[in-house]
Amino acid sequence: MRRIVVLSGGIGGARFLRGLLRAAPEAEVTVIGNTGDDIHLFGLKVCPDLDTVMYTLGGGIHEEQGWGRADETFAVKEELAAYGVGPDWFGLGDRDFATHVVRSQMLAAGYPLSAVTEALCRRWQPGVRLLPMSDDRIETHVLIDDADGGRRAVHFQEYWVRLRAGVPARAVVPVGAEHAKPAPGVLEAVADADLVLFPPSNPVVSVGTILAVPGIREAIADAGVPVVGLSPIIGDAPVRGMADKVLAAVGVEATATAVAQHYGSGLLDGWLVDTVDAAAVESVERAGIRCRAVPLLMTDVEATAEMARAALALAEEVKAV
Amino acid sequence: MRRIVVLSGGIGGARFLRGLLRAAPEAEVTVIGNTGDDIHLFGLKVCPDLDTVMYTLGGGIHEEQGWGRADETFAVKEELAAYGVGPDWFGLGDRDFATHVVRSQMLAAGYPLSAVTEALCRRWQPGVRLLPMSDDRIETHVLIDDADGGRRAVHFQEYWVRLRAGVPARAVVPVGAEHAKPAPGVLEAVADADLVLFPPSNPVVSVGTILAVPGIREAIADAGVPVVGLSPIIGDAPVRGMADKVLAAVGVEATATAVAQHYGSGLLDGWLVDTVDAAAVESVERAGIRCRAVPLLMTDVEATAEMARAALALAEEVKAV
Repeated sequence: MRRIVVLSGGIGGARFLRGLLRAAPEAEVTVIGNTGDDIHLFGLKVCPDLDTVMYTLGGGIHEEQGWGRADETFAVKEELAAYGVGPDWFGLGDRDFATHVVRSQMLAAGYPLSAVTEALCRRWQPGVRLLPMSDDRIETHVLIDDADGGRRAVHFQEYWVRLRAGVPARAVVPVGAEHAKPAPGVLEAVADADLVLFPPSNPVVSVGTILAVPGIREAIADAGVPVVGLSPIIGDAPVRGMADKVLAAVGVEATATAVAQHYGSGLLDGWLVDTVDAAAVESVERAGIRCRAVPLLMTDVEATAEMARAALALAEEVKAV
Repeated sequence: MRRIVVLSGGIGGARFLRGLLRAAPEAEVTVIGNTGDDIHLFGLKVCPDLDTVMYTLGGGIHEEQGWGRADETFAVKEELAAYGVGPDWFGLGDRDFATHVVRSQMLAAGYPLSAVTEALCRRWQPGVRLLPMSDDRIETHVLIDDADGGRRAVHFQEYWVRLRAGVPARAVVPVGAEHAKPAPGVLEAVADADLVLFPPSNPVVSVGTILAVPGIREAIADAGVPVVGLSPIIGDAPVRGMADKVLAAVGVEATATAVAQHYGSGLLDGWLVDTVDAAAVESVERAGIRCRAVPLLMTDVEATAEMARAALALAEEVKAV
C-alpha cells in the first residue's frame, strides 16, 4: 500500500487527484488542501478549494466549470441581491450554499475545520483523506495599486474573481499563516508518506500557501521520500487560470523551469514538464531536480491518469538514486 | 389620518392586514408581530410570522399555501438532507432561506431584530410599519405527554409543524417572555393609536404571546381607545390551523364566545363573530364586550376588506358610547 500525500489547490489539484486515483487505485491518498482562499460570505465560511476537491472526487462537481455543483440553481443569490446584500461577484449556488451552511453551523458549534471537513466527506466519499492545511484562519491577500499611487490589500477571491487578476499583483500575503499550525494529521501524513506530489496547482496561491504554514515545508523536506511536482505552466503560460499574474508578484517567471526553481531542489526531487517544454528538462536538472517531459494536459481522466503514472514513475526513479 | 395598531400572527393576521389596507388606505398601520414561534434552524434565525406578514403585504407570498415564497425551490433543503442535517420537517425554501441569511448576518453584526425587520421591509415595502413584539428572544414551547407518562416541552414549531398538533397540548409557555421588553416603538405606537385590532390570529400562540410581553397588555388596556377583535373560531372550529388544540391547553373552549371571554372585557371593547355564530352575540355582550355578527371568511381580499370595515365600524360604535 503506497501512502501518497498531495498538496492541492482547487480545480487543477482536484482533476489531478481524479487521475491519480485511477492510476493508483490501491494507494492511500491524503490530500492537504489549501484554505488560503477561504472567504466569509453572508456570515458563512466558504472553502472553495476543499469543496472543489470534495465535489470533484465525490461526483458532485459542475464538470465544465470545474468548480461549484452540477445542476446548480441560484435562487438564494438572486434573493440576496434583491435585498441589496453583496458581494454579487461570487457565484454561490443553492446546492453549494448548503455545504457552507453545514460547515458554518459545525464551526459555530466548536468543531475545528478538519473535523467539519471529515464530516462533509462522509457524504461525498471522495476516496482520499481530505485535510485542510490548518484549522487556523489564514486568508491570502493580494497587494494591488490603488488610485492614489499607493497600495491596498484585497482578499484573494476579490483579486481573482471580481478583478479577474486584471491588475498587477504586487505581493501575495497569506495573512495569519505565520501563527498557524498544521491541522491534526497533516504532519503525521507527511511523515508516514511514501511520496509527496505537487499537482499542477498554482505554485503561489495554492501549493505556496500550504507550504507557508510553519512546519509543512520542513516536514516535506525532512521526510526523506520522493517529492515530485507537475508543472502548471505549459509553453510559458498557465494551463488554466491566471497563475502568471501571481508568479510575477513573487518574482518568478511564468516558465516550467522557473516554477521548479521556485520550489527548489531542497524541496523538490522530481519535476514533470510538458512535451512542448522538453527544452526545459536540462535547465531543471541543472538545478538539481530530476525532470521528465510528458504530455501534461488534463484533457480527460485517462490522460490525467497517465500524468499521474509518469509522476509515480519519476518518484521511483528518484528513490532508486 | 387614523393610526391603527394590529397584533398579528402569521397567515391569518397577514391576510387580514391585506384587507385592512384596502378598507383603510389612508390609515397609518403599525403591526406588532408575534416572534414567539421564531426558531433557530441551521444556525439561522427564522421569524415565520414576521416574514409571512412581510411577504404577504409585499407581494412575495405563496398565495395558496399562505406562508413561504411564491415560485419557491428547495435545493438548499435537499442538500441539507443529503448531509443528514436536520430538521427535515421545516419547509425552508431557497428564496426564504436568503431572508434568514440576511437577518442572521445583521443580528450577528449587532443589530436588534427591530432594526433588521425594518431593513428587510425596505425591500418588501409592506405598506405598514412592522415591529417585532420584542427584540428579546422569546420562544413558545408546548408541553406534551412523553412516553413515560411524564411531560416534555417541545418548540412550538415542532408541535405545530412536525407533530401537526396531533397530541394534546398540556400547556403553552412563551419561554423568556417574563424578562422580555417590548421592541422600540411598540408601546409608543399603542399609546398613539386611535384603535387597536386583534385579527383572527391564534388567540393563544399568536396574539396571546404578544400580550405576554410585559407592558403590552397594560398599554393596550390603558390606551383609552377602542380595542376590537375578530373571532378566529367559526362554528366551534378554527377557520384555519389548529387553534382549538392550544386553546384547550389554556382551558378555553373553541367557541367564538369563549375566545372573547379569554381576552376579557378589561382588554377587548368589541368582538366580531361570524354570522353562523350570531347566537353568540348575546353571550359576548353579556360579558361586557360589544359584539356583531358578520361574515368572517377571508375568501378573497374584498371579503377581507369587508371584515376590516366591520371592525372599523364597530370601533366607531364603541367609541361613541
